[in-house]
Amino acid sequence: MDLLREDSGYFDLTTFGLGIGEKLGSISFAPKSDTILSGCDEAKKVFQECQLEYTFFQKNGTLVKAGQKIAECKGDAKSLHRAWKTAQNIFEYMSGIATYTHEMVQKAQLINPDITIATTRKNFPGTKELMLKAVMDGGGVAHRLGLFDSVLIFEQHLVFLQNEEELIKNFHKLKKSFIEKKIIVEVESYEQARYFAQLGADVLQCEKMSPAMLSECVGLKKEFGHLLVSATGGINASNIAEFVACGVDAIITSSPYHAKPADIKVIMEQK
Amino acid sequence: MDLLREDSGYFDLTTFGLGIGEKLGSISFAPKSDTILSGCDEAKKVFQECQLEYTFFQKNGTLVKAGQKIAECKGDAKSLHRAWKTAQNIFEYMSGIATYTHEMVQKAQLINPDITIATTRKNFPGTKELMLKAVMDGGGVAHRLGLFDSVLIFEQHLVFLQNEEELIKNFHKLKKSFIEKKIIVEVESYEQARYFAQLGADVLQCEKMSPAMLSECVGLKKEFGHLLVSATGGINASNIAEFVACGVDAIITSSPYHAKPADIKVIMEQK
Amino acid sequence: MDLLREDSGYFDLTTFGLGIGEKLGSISFAPKSDTILSGCDEAKKVFQECQLEYTFFQKNGTLVKAGQKIAECKGDAKSLHRAWKTAQNIFEYMSGIATYTHEMVQKAQLINPDITIATTRKNFPGTKELMLKAVMDGGGVAHRLGLFDSVLIFEQHLVFLQNEEELIKNFHKLKKSFIEKKIIVEVESYEQARYFAQLGADVLQCEKMSPAMLSECVGLKKEFGHLLVSATGGINASNIAEFVACGVDAIITSSPYHAKPADIKVIMEQK
Amino acid sequence: MDLLREDSGYFDLTTFGLGIGEKLGSISFAPKSDTILSGCDEAKKVFQECQLEYTFFQKNGTLVKAGQKIAECKGDAKSLHRAWKTAQNIFEYMSGIATYTHEMVQKAQLINPDITIATTRKNFPGTKELMLKAVMDGGGVAHRLGLFDSVLIFEQHLVFLQNEEELIKNFHKLKKSFIEKKIIVEVESYEQARYFAQLGADVLQCEKMSPAMLSECVGLKKEFGHLLVSATGGINASNIAEFVACGVDAIITSSPYHAKPADIKVIMEQK
Amino acid sequence: MDLLREDSGYFDLTTFGLGIGEKLGSISFAPKSDTILSGCDEAKKVFQECQLEYTFFQKNGTLVKAGQKIAECKGDAKSLHRAWKTAQNIFEYMSGIATYTHEMVQKAQLINPDITIATTRKNFPGTKELMLKAVMDGGGVAHRLGLFDSVLIFEQHLVFLQNEEELIKNFHKLKKSFIEKKIIVEVESYEQARYFAQLGADVLQCEKMSPAMLSECVGLKKEFGHLLVSATGGINASNIAEFVACGVDAIITSSPYHAKPADIKVIMEQK
Amino acid sequence: MDLLREDSGYFDLTTFGLGIGEKLGSISFAPKSDTILSGCDEAKKVFQECQLEYTFFQKNGTLVKAGQKIAECKGDAKSLHRAWKTAQNIFEYMSGIATYTHEMVQKAQLINPDITIATTRKNFPGTKELMLKAVMDGGGVAHRLGLFDSVLIFEQHLVFLQNEEELIKNFHKLKKSFIEKKIIVEVESYEQARYFAQLGADVLQCEKMSPAMLSECVGLKKEFGHLLVSATGGINASNIAEFVACGVDAIITSSPYHAKPADIKVIMEQK
Repeated sequence: MDLLREDSGYFDLTTFGLGIGEKLGSISFAPKSDTILSGCDEAKKVFQECQLEYTFFQKNGTLVKAGQKIAECKGDAKSLHRAWKTAQNIFEYMSGIATYTHEMVQKAQLINPDITIATTRKNFPGTKELMLKAVMDGGGVAHRLGLFDSVLIFEQHLVFLQNEEELIKNFHKLKKSFIEKKIIVEVESYEQARYFAQLGADVLQCEKMSPAMLSECVGLKKEFGHLLVSATGGINASNIAEFVACGVDAIITSSPYHAKPADIKVIMEQK
Repeated sequence: MDLLREDSGYFDLTTFGLGIGEKLGSISFAPKSDTILSGCDEAKKVFQECQLEYTFFQKNGTLVKAGQKIAECKGDAKSLHRAWKTAQNIFEYMSGIATYTHEMVQKAQLINPDITIATTRKNFPGTKELMLKAVMDGGGVAHRLGLFDSVLIFEQHLVFLQNEEELIKNFHKLKKSFIEKKIIVEVESYEQARYFAQLGADVLQCEKMSPAMLSECVGLKKEFGHLLVSATGGINASNIAEFVACGVDAIITSSPYHAKPADIKVIMEQK
Repeated sequence: MDLLREDSGYFDLTTFGLGIGEKLGSISFAPKSDTILSGCDEAKKVFQECQLEYTFFQKNGTLVKAGQKIAECKGDAKSLHRAWKTAQNIFEYMSGIATYTHEMVQKAQLINPDITIATTRKNFPGTKELMLKAVMDGGGVAHRLGLFDSVLIFEQHLVFLQNEEELIKNFHKLKKSFIEKKIIVEVESYEQARYFAQLGADVLQCEKMSPAMLSECVGLKKEFGHLLVSATGGINASNIAEFVACGVDAIITSSPYHAKPADIKVIMEQK
Repeated sequence: MDLLREDSGYFDLTTFGLGIGEKLGSISFAPKSDTILSGCDEAKKVFQECQLEYTFFQKNGTLVKAGQKIAECKGDAKSLHRAWKTAQNIFEYMSGIATYTHEMVQKAQLINPDITIATTRKNFPGTKELMLKAVMDGGGVAHRLGLFDSVLIFEQHLVFLQNEEELIKNFHKLKKSFIEKKIIVEVESYEQARYFAQLGADVLQCEKMSPAMLSECVGLKKEFGHLLVSATGGINASNIAEFVACGVDAIITSSPYHAKPADIKVIMEQK
Repeated sequence: MDLLREDSGYFDLTTFGLGIGEKLGSISFAPKSDTILSGCDEAKKVFQECQLEYTFFQKNGTLVKAGQKIAECKGDAKSLHRAWKTAQNIFEYMSGIATYTHEMVQKAQLINPDITIATTRKNFPGTKELMLKAVMDGGGVAHRLGLFDSVLIFEQHLVFLQNEEELIKNFHKLKKSFIEKKIIVEVESYEQARYFAQLGADVLQCEKMSPAMLSECVGLKKEFGHLLVSATGGINASNIAEFVACGVDAIITSSPYHAKPADIKVIMEQK
Repeated sequence: MDLLREDSGYFDLTTFGLGIGEKLGSISFAPKSDTILSGCDEAKKVFQECQLEYTFFQKNGTLVKAGQKIAECKGDAKSLHRAWKTAQNIFEYMSGIATYTHEMVQKAQLINPDITIATTRKNFPGTKELMLKAVMDGGGVAHRLGLFDSVLIFEQHLVFLQNEEELIKNFHKLKKSFIEKKIIVEVESYEQARYFAQLGADVLQCEKMSPAMLSECVGLKKEFGHLLVSATGGINASNIAEFVACGVDAIITSSPYHAKPADIKVIMEQK
């Protein structure tokens, strides 16, 4: 398992040098404050790879109260030390993201219980799987995994189209090519929003708009039956309410990725 | 390259569906505010893998002013879009860490120009290489890569030693085993610090101590010739000064890993 | 590159034993009959890995006439023999799929120029990327990459729902969770089709229906504004016309995956 | 396991969105028509990776009657859906190849019970292991794995030899280098066949010969004690008999690789 | 597991062709002469991957007497033959290294019970982990894993420093950068040794010195309190005593990497 | 490239700490005594990965005189130091094996110019490719890569056959299954040798026989036309002559794998 290998390498100098590797003990993990738990599947793989006997007391996506044990493992000191920090890092980073996502979801659903909180592809390179699983444990979903799973037109695509005629023709070609996908367009003004709504976009992704302009875009939903509107750009737990209040269907955000890791207490004991 | 693959997958639906893949263009990257740059080596690999023609105008570890171009690439739209977000994420996350590290280093060196800022092994699982390279670009170093490259005794090791006699015997065995390594011990009180200094520790890593207690530990340096003292636990850019002022030789911190990503503007143009 | 390694291993016994490895020569590839070309990107990687000098005369997705050269490489006999069969297999299998897909697209578009031909996730395990790229070169698209990129309800999901009440509640939960995705439901009868159309499905995927029943399902489109209807189950180049004639928006098929490989002639010459 | 990952990715959107992931159930696999089974080892790995409880009722290489269960697994819906399609694809493609190979073997052994059916290295790139294991389950063997495990001289080697003198010298050098290998030469005419038989080839691989010419080559066996003769080029289940009837020792074919996948019924049930 | 795959590949032709694959049997491993055992963890992974039932009777790092069983496995002939040679090679090479290291340690500790035997980074490329684990099982340690875990100045670094002024400045910068590491300098003469001792080196690594010069360097320890001295260059079991006798703290050697593999008898039986 | 990564890791602490990374220089490699060169392809990949400009003056398999340059590279100190030890280790270990193999070949061919020297699958786990390429550069070949490329019957197979009847039946089944392979049998006595010769073995591999017995086995060649005889078990450069003198066709040996690495001088210079 690469995540374990990254930290534990070939051997553990300290445990080896102290001559304690064969002694038996236990390790347990518990959050220092209330936390939405994430990372159990990955931690379990760490414990398995370290050949530890383990028990989980909690499940991904649930609220673990301060001090409640998440999991406990038994084995020799060499294996306990090998698993320790990787498992702790997994729990801390993933639960931090889940907890933050959960907070955004809570705040948003107070205003609109049907709102979707989806996170962008602006994850730390190499962590997409862990970051997205943590988002889902917190009640969010992935906005898009990358270029391969969804259709999203940016300004950076439009620069390659010569004129409106080419835009219209190619937009329809795109829509026809991927009829099983929704066509999402990122827009920065009401005019752009209206233009693409009328061209046939399924979702307008409103980038860094004022609440006023965003509400205006939401207004297009009345006119265009199946149209959905999402908001993106600088949205986090402290300002999400005002965006939700504009009536959007979804919030697209990267902020959970930068959440403060949860603080997980680790207790190791000799048995 | 896995980092690229994670985002770009098998193909780019949008670029393909819009039929713009073969059109020629350019992409450039520039920070929106002053930033210590990091990630050039990894971004270069992304550009190479995408078969783009690229030029770098800046180097890792230097201050790039707001709006100054970091790099520019030329190629077809398909390749430009493939490279875009992965390269941007690399620059943003790594430069964010470098910039934050640099800020800590600056603040610390005002007080002690010889201070070392070293970051822990509490990185996001799977990102150790990128996070540590970014730390080095910001003027810090790695505290330890993991279990395999250094010797560090924690409370979690001591629980496996029955009594003082065993501790003393095994400590000396450890020291003898790894004479080419410094023996670092994490301590939480002055008594513990003095105990391990006298036992032969090379570095005392003072965990979550008050400035008063920390200064007291630093005082041990007079008595024990080659002893070094570091501080760790909750140290970040806003409070680093008070720890440095206690006279420690090094600050051990995880806070750069959670730095806000730099904001990198991306301009794509048709050529 | 794993595809190359699979065939060429550590060394080439025959070329080594015959002592011809250092002699210079060329290799060229040309189809024996008209072929829609696919595999150029992968073949290029093979040539690069073998350190051959190469020229491509044709592009993916174009019709290459019998005897027209696709590509030519120069290098020593050792490298030419190393690249030979892997490159040939890539061209043959991928172009075979592209050509077959193209044939289905042609036949379908005679009847409905806007029809989509999409291929399933029933690819040979381990070949998804190559098979799907070949499909796209032939004018088709991927129906879904797997479980992670799209929402598709099968009978095998419904067995886990106790009763209609749970079905309705969970269907709406699903729809709310993934508002940026279309909700596709596989149906086997008109009653099922109507039921899910009214429940809010975006696409009805009609499995193994008779033309009469399929046409009836297509009739639901009048009633449900944004509804799309696709046909699947045993559709191939010889019977596609009758399914398209029923008025569906898309054909979902696995048959291109089993296409006969194109026959690519390889000429090797000493220089 | 890469084959599983290819289809299942990070998560299963449908099962997650429907909220059925934790429900318990079973999945079973059975062929719709009589099939020579292949793929049990790979399917088992899929089940293990998905942490399913599994039972196999049949073994690789045996005839499974229509409707007979191959295997059954128990677990939660999330894991059952994760394993489903990858395991089904493995069974379908591998059993399709095994069944087709078996058909060729049966037809050939009616005429010559000692005949060998061996498959070429013209497998779909990336599938060599699965395709060859399926061939063996059907009663065939691998002709050669690639360049590294066997010696086979093609016309494409001979073009690098200047004249007959060099050919003779290098042929003997080759034979001497690999005395533990048989020297196989692909020939296209009787004259070539006789030439290489007399030069010391162990096996003549007769490429695309008429039955008359092939029989003539087989005649060389009387003259050259240990000589073996194989036939290759366009041989499949429908024409294999006429080639075997010529008296060859082996049939070299790629046709099982393109066999129609077996049709495997999958039943999922809630428990 | 790559080590197993390297030898066993896709299948075992002999066992398959002989039709004995399903028969049950056992395999056991025992050294032909007294051996310090190493490789148990890796052999265990081989047995697990081959799905064998296994028992270990001995532990890494212990002396196994000639004929004593190390381990025994049960399973079918196919799996026993698959595991055989990889497991045997692991035991033979790793135990050979461990035994040789142990011999060096024994000889050295007769003279100085506190001596450290550390092995260099001159391992066979690709074997670092196995070679170093074997060294540790024999009572040695790793000198350095590579460039990333330790600081060691060679002549090859000094050629990049223009003059003494630059050397002094950069040496202090280095020392300040890595205060948690010891600064090791390879020296070839007493003058160089004294120079770097006075500059602040923590360890002098004396390369290919005569006993007389080496003793002189050891003499520097009196003058420089924390200074350690190691010897390197051509040291092996037959000459280690004379180097240890000079009073060094550590011996740095590559010779265990070239140790004769242990001779491990393998007994296979039908059950 | 994994071989490089193993030694160079994330970064080079010494070069970084000394601040010399950007300075330009060169590195060159030359053997200290006459050496058969091996490892050029792998070293080239190291140089490429390190982005060094390189020139090779010698080729694999040739005799390089003491002091003659093998290769020279130019680049910055950071890259030169990154490439140094991995390239040197590759040259030293591979050339050591090539040189030793060459010595065995020379000694053997003095007696029988047609003799084959082939090396076993008892390589250090993980090094098969490098060790075998080095053997071939020295004039030897691979005896067998592993279980998958050749047929070789050991005593350990025979224990699974109940009686002679089963042995005869299964031997013929095996021979029939792999007619394109030679059937090799390891034998330990003349009786066994004669038995398997008469049963139809293509090669008798005589394990640890006395010269007398070995000569007797060689005598079987007169009786059995195509039979070949090889000798194995404890054969090395010092005793090879006596085995060759017995008239065998091939020597099977592991001894080159344990050859002393060549001594390659590395010169680094600032430019």
